[in-house]
Amino acid sequence: QQIFFRIRSNKVFEFFVIGVIIFSALVIGVKTYELPPVFVQVVGVLDIFITLIFLVEIIIRFLGEEDKKRFFNKAWNVFDTLIVIMSLVPIEDSEMALIGRLVRIFRVLRMVSIIPELRLLLNSLLTALPQLGYVMLMMFIIFYIYAAVGSTFFAEINPTLWGDIAVSLLTLFRVMTFEDWTDVMYETMTVYPLSWAFYLTFIFFTAFAFLNMVIGIVVNVLEE
Amino acid sequence: QQIFFRIRSNKVFEFFVIGVIIFSALVIGVKTYELPPVFVQVVGVLDIFITLIFLVEIIIRFLGEEDKKRFFNKAWNVFDTLIVIMSLVPIEDSEMALIGRLVRIFRVLRMVSIIPELRLLLNSLLTALPQLGYVMLMMFIIFYIYAAVGSTFFAEINPTLWGDIAVSLLTLFRVMTFEDWTDVMYETMTVYPLSWAFYLTFIFFTAFAFLNMVIGIVVNVLEE
Amino acid sequence: QQIFFRIRSNKVFEFFVIGVIIFSALVIGVKTYELPPVFVQVVGVLDIFITLIFLVEIIIRFLGEEDKKRFFNKAWNVFDTLIVIMSLVPIEDSEMALIGRLVRIFRVLRMVSIIPELRLLLNSLLTALPQLGYVMLMMFIIFYIYAAVGSTFFAEINPTLWGDIAVSLLTLFRVMTFEDWTDVMYETMTVYPLSWAFYLTFIFFTAFAFLNMVIGIVVNVLEE
Amino acid sequence: QQIFFRIRSNKVFEFFVIGVIIFSALVIGVKTYELPPVFVQVVGVLDIFITLIFLVEIIIRFLGEEDKKRFFNKAWNVFDTLIVIMSLVPIEDSEMALIGRLVRIFRVLRMVSIIPELRLLLNSLLTALPQLGYVMLMMFIIFYIYAAVGSTFFAEINPTLWGDIAVSLLTLFRVMTFEDWTDVMYETMTVYPLSWAFYLTFIFFTAFAFLNMVIGIVVNVLEE
Ligand code: NA
Ligand code: NA
Repeated sequence: QQIFFRIRSNKVFEFFVIGVIIFSALVIGVKTYELPPVFVQVVGVLDIFITLIFLVEIIIRFLGEEDKKRFFNKAWNVFDTLIVIMSLVPIEDSEMALIGRLVRIFRVLRMVSIIPELRLLLNSLLTALPQLGYVMLMMFIIFYIYAAVGSTFFAEINPTLWGDIAVSLLTLFRVMTFEDWTDVMYETMTVYPLSWAFYLTFIFFTAFAFLNMVIGIVVNVLEE
Repeated sequence: QQIFFRIRSNKVFEFFVIGVIIFSALVIGVKTYELPPVFVQVVGVLDIFITLIFLVEIIIRFLGEEDKKRFFNKAWNVFDTLIVIMSLVPIEDSEMALIGRLVRIFRVLRMVSIIPELRLLLNSLLTALPQLGYVMLMMFIIFYIYAAVGSTFFAEINPTLWGDIAVSLLTLFRVMTFEDWTDVMYETMTVYPLSWAFYLTFIFFTAFAFLNMVIGIVVNVLEE
Repeated sequence: QQIFFRIRSNKVFEFFVIGVIIFSALVIGVKTYELPPVFVQVVGVLDIFITLIFLVEIIIRFLGEEDKKRFFNKAWNVFDTLIVIMSLVPIEDSEMALIGRLVRIFRVLRMVSIIPELRLLLNSLLTALPQLGYVMLMMFIIFYIYAAVGSTFFAEINPTLWGDIAVSLLTLFRVMTFEDWTDVMYETMTVYPLSWAFYLTFIFFTAFAFLNMVIGIVVNVLEE
Repeated sequence: QQIFFRIRSNKVFEFFVIGVIIFSALVIGVKTYELPPVFVQVVGVLDIFITLIFLVEIIIRFLGEEDKKRFFNKAWNVFDTLIVIMSLVPIEDSEMALIGRLVRIFRVLRMVSIIPELRLLLNSLLTALPQLGYVMLMMFIIFYIYAAVGSTFFAEINPTLWGDIAVSLLTLFRVMTFEDWTDVMYETMTVYPLSWAFYLTFIFFTAFAFLNMVIGIVVNVLEE
């Protein structure tokens, strides 16, 4: 077990694994291009190779762990193991093939699990989220009310944009990003000439809530 | 009165009311979809049910209040009562039906009145507003002058965008959000080749005023 | 002189002048609409009235000043006097009429000269500008180099966007605001497939410089 | 050597060189316009003149340096020398002509090398970059995974936008800048109605990472 622990803690081992992850990311990238049949086969072989390396790596890391039970207490270990196991499932029908490809893409996320600095960064990002909870809820309430009003009044003007509350929420998100929002507005203004107030108040409220969210994070970070 | 006070202060009661508000929000959402007639009737019954629960709740909260006069001093209590009373008005003609639907939508805002954290957040947002008073006024002066100049020079080029000072203000807001603003500019540049200066100075002034507004809030928050 | 000084310092006098400025702003707004001939005459009379009030006001303020020489040392007094004098010039030919209308629009700026808080705000905005001097210069250098490269390579692809260095600068400003920037990019990518690097590095550099400008202001404000 | 050192340290000499750089920038700007043949010749002569002045200047600065070896240790001296040497290469065939024009454009960057404040600003910008290293890496991982998923699912819907991982990365950058991103989304939603989740999570993740990057810089600057 000590041998495995020493391998696991070895910097060369870590860099080798990072290298394999980058290589597997490149293979994923190459696969998106139209390749001659020979290359497709090469890529297939490489894929099996990468899967095996990842399998060996996870076994080494597992065997190097002193307390076997604690291994799966770490979320990233569970993630890594799942990715490896799902890579091992043979791909046959087309449905499974798509999932297989997705699993291979998510291998790139192993970059986060292996580099401590990225893991730390992600943790600090995630800990910032709960502080935003109530502003997010407030924003959702604003969105929901405007979406309900929008689909009540504008559904008949343009069903694609305002047909039901779900597409209305999407349309409002579009308005919030200022993406061709005047096209949306001019259309409803032909029927309700005062509907500009709907959009302007919505933009004002969401921009204001967003601003407060940003300022909230800044202040929280500065206090620490 | 003490019984009502105890009910009112009960956490279970609060969670039950939050549950009903969420449920009423879902009903509003469902109503935006085309429903088979059976569902429409079910939704109608649910609506009466929700209104009754809200009525009972507001009565409990009113009876639980020690000093009856103080009850309506709180803005949120007035808001809640108004929403309930307006929900009770029978809907007959189509004009009223629309207002009835709006009232039901605004019930979602009861979420803010019932969750203390959201009420607090809204208060802190509202107290930030007056500090912005003069920057907002400055921004409006900039908008007004540019809108007056815009409708003086460009009204004949495109009456839809620059016809009078009201639509000019709307067009300038559009330019401020960068929404297809070059289309607006290129059009006026065909007649006044130097009109790019109009848009660029406007963008510069408003961006600068907006930036100062944001920084003003940040500094105010940090000082507290 | 003391009487005039007392009038000038009177809060009622100040509010009256603010009222007249708001009224003159409304008159400017009304003029942008198509009016029946009767109204046009009314507006004309009102305009003379406002000009006279402003004339009387500036005379009172001038007479109320202890040291007459110091009166014109204040930039806002010069601005107010100029606006009043130019309003007095009789409008005859169409060229002058346009300038006359512009002068009347700029009367709205008197709002800033009369409200001390707005004057203070503008001063604080203007004092923030010189600190930005070098970042602005850096940004202009980036713009200039990219505009020169852009008009060297892309002038033949689309002369309207890249014909000479002036329109290239305008096009780059458009790209910086993300306004249909991919349309601009896709067009040049048909000839130079690698020209995406031109746009991406430009966006990166300007966004980075802009960010540093914002942070610079925040830090400066916080240090005070 | 002391004479050259005195020239080099002279403020008049510095302002003269800045003047020549500005003049060379103007010449570059003028060249982007269609000029009558006489002007083209004038510009050609001016160009030779500017190159000679720059050559003399760099020689003076080199001779004025006490320790000749240290001269080329400064990156800006190397840059200046390279620009001058490449300006001296005679332009004959059209390929070289283009590079020659580019070199002349990059002369504008000498502005940064000669004004100490700009050099300082650029240094402070560059020192801020490494702190962003891990957030940038995180962002690239997000981009890469979404690009891989995008080109896996959407390649057949629109090969121009999602054909391979490279164009997918470009399309995602476009989505990140909100540039007509709904057009991209609506297109894929016709085949995969749930693909809005792809775009919304992407926007959420990148906006969140970007926000953290900005806040990270602000905090770093404030700590200094
Ligand atoms: Na946009
Ligand atoms: Na757009």
